[in-house]
Amino acid sequence: MSTHDGTEPAVISFADLDVELPEGVLVTDPDILAGYRHDRAQDPDAAVPAALVRATSTADVQATLRWANSHRVPVVPRGAGTSLSGGSGGIAGCIVLSTEKMRAITVDTATRTAVAQPGLFNSEVKRAAAEHGLWYPPDPSSFEICTIGGNAATNAGGLCCVKYGVTSDYVLGLEVVLADGTAVRLGGPRLKDVAGLSLTKLFVGSEGTLGVITEVTLRLLPPQPPASTMVATFGSVQAAADAVVAITGTLRPAMLEFMDRTTIGAVEDMLRMGLDRSTEGMLIARSDAPGAAAAEEIATMAQACRDSGAGEVFTTDDPDEGEAFAAARRMAIPAVERTGSLLLEDVGVPLPALPALVEGIAALAAEHDVTVAVIAHAGDGNTHPLIVYDPADDEMTARAAVVFGKIMDLAIELGGTITGEHGVGRLKKAWLPDQVGPDVMALTRQIKDALDPRSILNPGVVL
Amino acid sequence: MSTHDGTEPAVISFADLDVELPEGVLVTDPDILAGYRHDRAQDPDAAVPAALVRATSTADVQATLRWANSHRVPVVPRGAGTSLSGGSGGIAGCIVLSTEKMRAITVDTATRTAVAQPGLFNSEVKRAAAEHGLWYPPDPSSFEICTIGGNAATNAGGLCCVKYGVTSDYVLGLEVVLADGTAVRLGGPRLKDVAGLSLTKLFVGSEGTLGVITEVTLRLLPPQPPASTMVATFGSVQAAADAVVAITGTLRPAMLEFMDRTTIGAVEDMLRMGLDRSTEGMLIARSDAPGAAAAEEIATMAQACRDSGAGEVFTTDDPDEGEAFAAARRMAIPAVERTGSLLLEDVGVPLPALPALVEGIAALAAEHDVTVAVIAHAGDGNTHPLIVYDPADDEMTARAAVVFGKIMDLAIELGGTITGEHGVGRLKKAWLPDQVGPDVMALTRQIKDALDPRSILNPGVVL
Repeated sequence: MSTHDGTEPAVISFADLDVELPEGVLVTDPDILAGYRHDRAQDPDAAVPAALVRATSTADVQATLRWANSHRVPVVPRGAGTSLSGGSGGIAGCIVLSTEKMRAITVDTATRTAVAQPGLFNSEVKRAAAEHGLWYPPDPSSFEICTIGGNAATNAGGLCCVKYGVTSDYVLGLEVVLADGTAVRLGGPRLKDVAGLSLTKLFVGSEGTLGVITEVTLRLLPPQPPASTMVATFGSVQAAADAVVAITGTLRPAMLEFMDRTTIGAVEDMLRMGLDRSTEGMLIARSDAPGAAAAEEIATMAQACRDSGAGEVFTTDDPDEGEAFAAARRMAIPAVERTGSLLLEDVGVPLPALPALVEGIAALAAEHDVTVAVIAHAGDGNTHPLIVYDPADDEMTARAAVVFGKIMDLAIELGGTITGEHGVGRLKKAWLPDQVGPDVMALTRQIKDALDPRSILNPGVVL
Repeated sequence: MSTHDGTEPAVISFADLDVELPEGVLVTDPDILAGYRHDRAQDPDAAVPAALVRATSTADVQATLRWANSHRVPVVPRGAGTSLSGGSGGIAGCIVLSTEKMRAITVDTATRTAVAQPGLFNSEVKRAAAEHGLWYPPDPSSFEICTIGGNAATNAGGLCCVKYGVTSDYVLGLEVVLADGTAVRLGGPRLKDVAGLSLTKLFVGSEGTLGVITEVTLRLLPPQPPASTMVATFGSVQAAADAVVAITGTLRPAMLEFMDRTTIGAVEDMLRMGLDRSTEGMLIARSDAPGAAAAEEIATMAQACRDSGAGEVFTTDDPDEGEAFAAARRMAIPAVERTGSLLLEDVGVPLPALPALVEGIAALAAEHDVTVAVIAHAGDGNTHPLIVYDPADDEMTARAAVVFGKIMDLAIELGGTITGEHGVGRLKKAWLPDQVGPDVMALTRQIKDALDPRSILNPGVVL
């Protein structure tokens, strides 16, 4: 066993941590630990953790961090392990600190807020809100299997963000356990609160590097009105992108998604719903404007697509029919995954650069002889290039890794970001300095060192 | 001259700063300096600055901070000096660093963003966006006289925040000059970007204590549809609050403001528009839902008011008529100010605690024999108790100061915040630990010390 900084520690006994925790919370069974090596990014460099803590309370998290900090043992916080950038994979000698058993939630209709523990799935938060006639908007495609704690730790996005914003926009307060085991409460059920530094916002998206989130206070909205849907096909990515810019300059769609030809083919192979395999790009847009305004917005979007040279334009106010197209978009990753293993990107660019990004990705795919399918939350310029490879083929795996990096290089060159919603994790860390520059890295390091001086919190992520 | 930590420095010559700056940027003329002593909070403890820098560029800000940091001279960043919590008033021996001359703006319709220098007024940003068919929502009541840099530094709110969010929700990127003069770029014109820590969000609302904002990249929206307006009067604050909770649980009003009896009287004295002086509370609500949906939302809100026991309920879709009521609300502070000097509060509470807050304030006013008018951004629980006093009457001034503190105590007791949108500044600093507790204060101090180790940036604010 070696610690994350490469030194050989004295052999660490977890016995004195075990006595600080309720029975069964600390796990050292190798068979169970093996299941906490990987997250969904399947990073081959991930290591089996030395121990697992399945916290049942904030006190468990505090005890674990106090112990880990005093013993300088690295801690990898983990929700459901659905990170696509390797933010929750194990590292040598670490404790994986799982919040999967912290699953309480209360909803307050008067303040329109929910107070949730981190281990609940996003879908369970949505459901709890809905039971009180309220709505929690953020909707990562993985919403049925990802946790609200992970959503907050990564500032997760989703499909409705183009109109309703990302996780950070809904986190009003947090309970966070700091590196030394101190639990702090930040913010609370108040829509406006500027008392002191914006610490709540700093911890959202910090990927477990500054503290462990043990409770989130979420802003809820009145229920979303039923949505109408528009689907349009295009002969070129540029035409689809023109339509996106025209639409978002006029109104705020509740969804505005793009699928390229490769993705459409993969989805059609899987779902057999009659999608046109010959089209170069498809937009799926929604309006949830109240009453008759939805039909007006859908008509406006359809016209923008026609003006931008769309082939077919289909609209419906039937929720089931519309949901079928939204579901097709959500199934894009599993559909493409049937054709091989995936390296998942989530680079984002300013909207006008979207065609250049998609064309550049196609050029990289051709140059390096790999398949790259592109889906995008087009309305906010956030794309998911899916690099398909065969892990049994070392040479192809190497080519895929090269393309993974070059897509980030391209996004940076186009004024974009290496990660729009998945986080930097361990897989994208090497590209972060290229995007933000040495001064921002130094600033990041100053904050990290101030809050986690022994660097026990998710080392190797971001920094 | 003494520095902010009370030690007597060697006499400082600004000559070697002067040579680093363009001609006329450094000002030491006492007559001009006197005008930079106070901000709108009129803190009697504010001091005339030792020097004024009217920066014309990021380079000027960098040169000033480099020099100030090496000489350990405190710097008070200042936009238009409209702080209501004393965040931009002078302190002994300081440089006031004004951004009033940095006034460039560009609007990009394709990315729906504006890049603005900090010295522009909020109203000028709105106007520049409107010239390109776009909209910058945040609308502090002072929008015609407060700067966008100050808005970002304080995370300013306003009337439309109940539906559209606060300044932080619109700041996609910043250029910030750090204490040592390093300029960093954070974020950018991307709607989703989770590359690294949420540093943009940390600097928004940091009240000039972590860096000086020299450029903001703002998210813009499609233009706001014309709004319809509802006005309702109530026989009790509780009835008005009941209506607020009923409304916000059902839909998202574009404005939901409250005025109490004292405020209504003051506004009526000033505007003579026929407001009912006998009513205990008035709500002014707006819907900007598209098309026919606005009328539906207005009808829903009117019914909620009637169900909560409203007296008169008036609705209109005439923009001028509606604007007259919104303007009456915006004139509330000047109207009450005609009756005496004001101590302006901006405490916020969770919505259900609104009646307890307003009643508690009335009890404090009676107990201490001062007039307190209450207006509120009711939809988000953010209130503005206006404490009226005569500064020539020392005893009354003292009583007003006591009530100022006790209102914050009450807000904290009710689970609220001492400041919803004005910031902590120097006037509310003493109450911040009571709200957030020693651990959050320690965390704040860690970040402050990491980023501004010589504590030159706006010392005495927040910490």
